[in-house]
This record gives sequence, C-alpha cells and structure tokens, in this order.
Amino acid sequence: MNQYVIINGALVAKEEAKVSIYDLAVQRGYGIFDFFKTINGEPVWLDDHLDRFYFSAAEMFMKVPVQRSELKKLLWKLMDKNNLPNSGVRLTLTGGESTNGYSLQCPSLLISQEPLVYNKALFETGIRLVTFTHQRQLPHIKTIDYLQAIRLQPFIKEKGAQDILYHFNSTVLEGPRWNFFIVDERGEICTPATNILKGVTRKKIIEHRNLHVKEIEIHPDELATTREAFITSTTKIVLPVLNIDGYKVGTGKPGNITREIWQQLMVEQKVN
Amino acid sequence: MNQYVIINGALVAKEEAKVSIYDLAVQRGYGIFDFFKTINGEPVWLDDHLDRFYFSAAEMFMKVPVQRSELKKLLWKLMDKNNLPNSGVRLTLTGGESTNGYSLQCPSLLISQEPLVYNKALFETGIRLVTFTHQRQLPHIKTIDYLQAIRLQPFIKEKGAQDILYHFNSTVLEGPRWNFFIVDERGEICTPATNILKGVTRKKIIEHRNLHVKEIEIHPDELATTREAFITSTTKIVLPVLNIDGYKVGTGKPGNITREIWQQLMVEQKVN
Repeated sequence: MNQYVIINGALVAKEEAKVSIYDLAVQRGYGIFDFFKTINGEPVWLDDHLDRFYFSAAEMFMKVPVQRSELKKLLWKLMDKNNLPNSGVRLTLTGGESTNGYSLQCPSLLISQEPLVYNKALFETGIRLVTFTHQRQLPHIKTIDYLQAIRLQPFIKEKGAQDILYHFNSTVLEGPRWNFFIVDERGEICTPATNILKGVTRKKIIEHRNLHVKEIEIHPDELATTREAFITSTTKIVLPVLNIDGYKVGTGKPGNITREIWQQLMVEQKVN
Repeated sequence: MNQYVIINGALVAKEEAKVSIYDLAVQRGYGIFDFFKTINGEPVWLDDHLDRFYFSAAEMFMKVPVQRSELKKLLWKLMDKNNLPNSGVRLTLTGGESTNGYSLQCPSLLISQEPLVYNKALFETGIRLVTFTHQRQLPHIKTIDYLQAIRLQPFIKEKGAQDILYHFNSTVLEGPRWNFFIVDERGEICTPATNILKGVTRKKIIEHRNLHVKEIEIHPDELATTREAFITSTTKIVLPVLNIDGYKVGTGKPGNITREIWQQLMVEQKVN
C-alpha cells in the first residue's frame, strides 16, 4: 500500500518526500516537531499535542504556515489518504530554506504517518535504564535536537541498558523521548518539575482526578530506595522501569501503582 | 550559471538537491559538517578541514561513505563543474535515512559550494558582540546544532549587536561560528583553551612561528580591560571586536596586533 506525507500542504508519496539540502534543519539542525497517535482512526489528545506544537514553534520564533483549523484539515486529509487506523502522526516544522544558510525565513511544515501498534506485553518486560549527566538545551521546547540521545546508543548497549535517564546538578530529569516518574518510599507518586519537556501523557497523569502526583526535585540517591519507577510517552503509554544502573528498582517487577495508572490510561485511550 | 552539488557521489543541480524527510538530520538534528574556502581555485587549509571532518564523524559514530582520497576527487569534480574560483565549500554528513527514525544506519554525504568573496573593508568596521551564558553541547565536534545561535538572532538585534559571545561558568568561550582572541592588558595574545570548537584559523594562529599565543581561561571581567579583541573563522579570517555588551574594547578601533595577524594571514592565504 502506498503511503503519503504532506509537505507544505501538498500530498506527496513517501518515497518522494524530500526537503532541500539548504533547509535549516539539514544545515543547522533547526526545527521543532510533535507526535500524536491514532487508535482506531481517532487521534489521541490531539489538541494537547497541537498546543505544544504551536508553543514550540513560537518559542523558536518560527511561524507555522497554517492556522490550527487548517492544520487539522491537513491531518484528516492525510489520515484519510493513508488509511492507517493505528498510527503515529508526526508534525515537523523545519527552519526552511535560507538564502544565507543561517537566517530564519520561511519554515516548512511536514506531516508524516507511520503504522503504530501498541504491544501490551512490553509492560511486563519493563525497561532497564542507565543514568547519564546531561541537561538538554531548551528542554521545554520539543526541538529536533537528539544529538546526545543518538550518540549515546552504543554506550547504552555497552551498559546492558535499553535507554538513558538524564540527570544534572544532582537532579533527575527525563529520558530522550519520555518523562520519568517514581513511587517513592512513602508511596507518593513524584515526577521532576523543571528543566524537562512536559509530555502530554505526563500532563494527563498529573491532572488525573484519581491520582495525586507531586512535581518535585528528585535526587539520584532516591532511586536506590524508590518502590516503583516508570516512564511515560505517547508510544509507550506507561512502562515500568525495573533496573537503573544495574540495580533493581523496588522488587524488580512492575509495581501495583504503575499497573493501575497504565490500566487507567489504556481505558481512557480506548486501547484494545 | 547552473550550480551543482554532490549527493552521495552524484552530481545534482542545486535546485534538485534534496534529502529524504526521513533523514536523521531532519528528524533528529543529527549531522556534522565542515567548511573550507577556495581562493583563485585553490582550497585553503584543506587537509586541516578534512582532518576535522573525519574526526567529527568518528566522534558521532558516523561512517563517512568515502575514504579521504576519494573525497578529494569528489571535491575537485564539484569545483571543476561549478567553476567558482572564490568559494566556500561545505561538506555535510547527515545521519541518513533510518527505518525506525532513531537509529543510525547509513549516513549521507552532501557537498555544496557557494560563491564567497572576501570583503577587506569589513576589517575597519569590526564587529559588536553581546555576551550570553551558554555552553554548547559536544563543543569539540562540528555538529549541525545551531539551535541557540539561530534562536538568539532577535536578541542580538535587540541588543544592537551583530553576533553573540558565549560564556559559561565564568569562562569566555566562543561565538556560534568563530573563535575568540584577546590581547590582554599586558599585551599577550590569549584564546580560550577548552569547551570550544577548535577552528582551523585559530590553530594556524596558535601554531604561527611569529606569534606567541596563550591557550588559557579568560574570565568575562577581563573583557573590560583588554587592549584588543578579535574573532577568527574561515569566512572572516580575522575581524576586530570593537564593542562588547555596549562597552568599547580598548580604543574602540581595530588594534595593531589584530591588524598584523590579519595581514599575515591574508598574505599566507593569498587573498588579493
């Protein structure tokens, strides 16, 4: 089946989907994006993602070439064309072509869609993390900057882990593509408050009527005594962290509070 | 006149020079580059730039698809085709297409060339800088990450400056596209030693037989009493800094030592 993307408003076959090498994303790594999923053809928390997309663009002084209502029309046009009921949709705003290779002129809007099927079994497997000292630049903005994350992939493998947990100035932060939560030794659900990208799944958990979550500074030493830990993202929903730097988290199995939050979100997202 | 670029070994018209939107440069800002100039058809300090290009690639775990001798052949092929005797040539290595949008697979090599004519008159005009607290990530690698530099352009304008001087932890560092030197109150030529990108022009000045340069920590307070300051880059060669944060540097005019270094480099580069 042919798959399409939308580049500056026009449907283009995936294989033909290209940008100029003079685009500021290619020349200067300048761009922002956002990513939401569809379940049974329905976008999940679309407006939260669009809020953040326009926010990121404004923070980078980039003009999104279409208003929100027009953008939604483009999204539906692409989703209708591709007919991928369970998918991830990525909105990317690149710096666009620049006559001097440096100054921002006219950003380009790319919309792409890929199949995305959630695998419930991964919850039981959980994830092993390794910590690394790093503060992302402009952490509150969803930029395309993943230099460290991609460069660290051999290091992660070497450490026998599956992903990296950033900390800086004795404060636990986030992973490259997810937020971090713990259930501390008193049973309280905590998540880092600042110097992170505020994820949509994170926001939904914090605002959840059945949950009390503290946005607070987490010290790396606390990881040794925490009862449960989990990460959250659009793709992963809730995934238990079972091991950090080679040490078991809690019992080394998915915790009860983590499981309850996961199940609650699956119901709300209508995950089959 | 038509202008060409080389993409993965093939000559392509500039207007057709594109990369996939699935390239890791577009999706994750992952790429490195280098930039040298030609004067009267002769590359300037080419091997120094190629040394750094291969170094940057290795540091990012990216395989350059061609060996150095083959790369030089490609450079000459492009330079012959474009016939631009005074030019800037940019080598870019992008992360390349990635099936999962995240893992490094097969980097793409882009070579582009633009006319570049050096304007001697700019030396007398000099440049006005504004300082900003920032440590570039992976500063020793010439990555495509210019998120801060481009985002700060409105700030630079608002401050009545023309470019930004980064400092961090009470240490002066560099600008987004150049190195920084001072002639201190004792008349010694000094340049920051660490946490910077080591420019080729900087290297040539440090290694110069007629000059004694100290690679040393420079405290922001020293900028108030320095006799001269200048920046160095392939494009700018040597450009006097006449004003920092609204305060005159030295007499506020290009200094004698700065002028001598500039003239020396122009002779060595055979600038007309």
